[in-house]
Amino acid sequence: MRLLEKTIKAIYPQDSSARDQVRQRLDALAMPHWALGDVMDLAVDLAGIMGTAQPHIAKKAIVTMAADHGVVAEGVSKYPSEVTAQMVANFVQGGAAINALARQARADVFIADLGVAADLSEYSATLIDKKIAYGTKNIARGPAMSNAHASLALEAGIEIGNELVAKGYDLLATGEMGIGNTTAATAIAAVCTDRLVEELTGRGAGLDDAQLAHKIKVIDEVLKVNTPNPKNGIEILAKVGGYEIGGMAGLILSAAANRKPVLVDGFIAGAAALVAYRIEPFVRDYLIYSHRSVEPGHKYILEFLGCQRPLLDLNLRLGEGTGAALAMNIVEAAIAVLTEVRTFEEAAVSEATR
Amino acid sequence: MRLLEKTIKAIYPQDSSARDQVRQRLDALAMPHWALGDVMDLAVDLAGIMGTAQPHIAKKAIVTMAADHGVVAEGVSKYPSEVTAQMVANFVQGGAAINALARQARADVFIADLGVAADLSEYSATLIDKKIAYGTKNIARGPAMSNAHASLALEAGIEIGNELVAKGYDLLATGEMGIGNTTAATAIAAVCTDRLVEELTGRGAGLDDAQLAHKIKVIDEVLKVNTPNPKNGIEILAKVGGYEIGGMAGLILSAAANRKPVLVDGFIAGAAALVAYRIEPFVRDYLIYSHRSVEPGHKYILEFLGCQRPLLDLNLRLGEGTGAALAMNIVEAAIAVLTEVRTFEEAAVSEATR
Repeated sequence: MRLLEKTIKAIYPQDSSARDQVRQRLDALAMPHWALGDVMDLAVDLAGIMGTAQPHIAKKAIVTMAADHGVVAEGVSKYPSEVTAQMVANFVQGGAAINALARQARADVFIADLGVAADLSEYSATLIDKKIAYGTKNIARGPAMSNAHASLALEAGIEIGNELVAKGYDLLATGEMGIGNTTAATAIAAVCTDRLVEELTGRGAGLDDAQLAHKIKVIDEVLKVNTPNPKNGIEILAKVGGYEIGGMAGLILSAAANRKPVLVDGFIAGAAALVAYRIEPFVRDYLIYSHRSVEPGHKYILEFLGCQRPLLDLNLRLGEGTGAALAMNIVEAAIAVLTEVRTFEEAAVSEATR
Repeated sequence: MRLLEKTIKAIYPQDSSARDQVRQRLDALAMPHWALGDVMDLAVDLAGIMGTAQPHIAKKAIVTMAADHGVVAEGVSKYPSEVTAQMVANFVQGGAAINALARQARADVFIADLGVAADLSEYSATLIDKKIAYGTKNIARGPAMSNAHASLALEAGIEIGNELVAKGYDLLATGEMGIGNTTAATAIAAVCTDRLVEELTGRGAGLDDAQLAHKIKVIDEVLKVNTPNPKNGIEILAKVGGYEIGGMAGLILSAAANRKPVLVDGFIAGAAALVAYRIEPFVRDYLIYSHRSVEPGHKYILEFLGCQRPLLDLNLRLGEGTGAALAMNIVEAAIAVLTEVRTFEEAAVSEATR
């Protein structure tokens, strides 16, 4: 059996008995009932995901996946494609925002090349090499990649996830870098959510009004040229996706199969979650939404996936995994509340009198 | 000159030159412009507060101040006053939510008795003893305390802040515990914001509809019996406040005088910020708002103080300083972004082409 099928077969819903046990414990903590709100809801989810009433997080990994996008030829981005490789160099050298925020969160960052349009062999010592191609083809003219390449991207992400879990990482996070990837992500969101391209399209790295109007036209063309079946995740990925988006979807599938929580960063990572969800809907039980991005399409992705409210809302629109890094502290906090706070009985505190 | 006056005289607005320098640096970081949104705004504030373009946080302190409230006799709380002292014991023993969340944030917790209605001498080794009285008087019948006691509470908070700064703490946070203190905080909010008591009053630790209606009636009575001058912070504190609220206001004044950022926790801490603001309006420049509480009055306090959006919005309503502890990681993250992320030039990344 191929790795992708094997992974899909290993994905089940959350453990409801662990959820119930944790809910009971949290109900009894020495505080007004459920006074830590969303943090307590998160603790219940973490228990359900990890299948234990005593979840523990020893090691945290952020995987930042990079790839290029042929659609940049259409003038959809303010930055040239070279920036993808330049930022990979910056990540590897520890000088980017994701490195700084991961250090704050005491998480390890892994950088993976899924399809950067440059030779990155000089970074082979620190870079995870899963390069499938030198960027996608121009999705305004035809599919991004073959179905075979889409499966390879998914399996690359699964392999990375499985190796991290084998090394003891028990909280994973998705990040990305890819000039042009908001265009691919917006196309995926349009296919899945049935929203208008105008509602979904944002300024990416900083387009002006005319450039935004042009980007909307290009995405309309992308959807006209490619007409993926909205129920088929692999087809969506192959027709309008990207290699890093496939890698992130694979990482999400691996996390779900390994019963580990996975923090979904922003808009592009959200598009990867849509792909993963269309491949195996139960992945939804393993997703923790880090933040609401400034990109207008993100709220529709979150709505579609059933997320009422992500953990953070800080006007972020960087990617790299930065929102996920910021949210890791809240995940740890939820576990601390569950495992370190005493109940009324343990603390000998009087309960409500009326 | 008395400590309170001396402290007020030492409070100036933020350093605009440090703000400008930091804004320039952040403008040049190798990322789409201001792509880390609120985190970058926070970095500018931290530089303005600390008066340097290279702010640094070495040690973090959360001060949880406890006191009792005579108005509990009116039946405004679900829990008996004894719970205040019981929770102090829990804090000192490390078993409460603030202890767990402070450990996650690598912050130290200091517990201070400003006016608990119980003898806490058995905890003298670990508790900061600033007890002014055994709880306030019943504010539904008259003032909470004398003006002299209000000044003492403020000065107790200033002393605690000054000592922490002398010990090298450069990020402070306010927390509290006091059965009945949402009633006092709501009265303060009503005096300062001119909103209706019905709009401001919440369920505190979990009142039902009838209990909520009763609480609103009691607060209306509090405001009829006491008519503090809404421009006079000390009078507001003395007439409708509480000892822990005075202590927190003092801590805020100390932070501002020492040019240190102070994280304001939730609703009760927000009421303390109102008192501090009415004593010296420039304290506003030193406040970092941790989160939006479930208590309905909190959003009006934030609006009144000019806070567009606090860092977190997680349905919290516990107090203790828990929201501030959660937000400490974001403060550290803002400093990491400012001091550890490379510019386009430093990272040799191409800038926007159009």
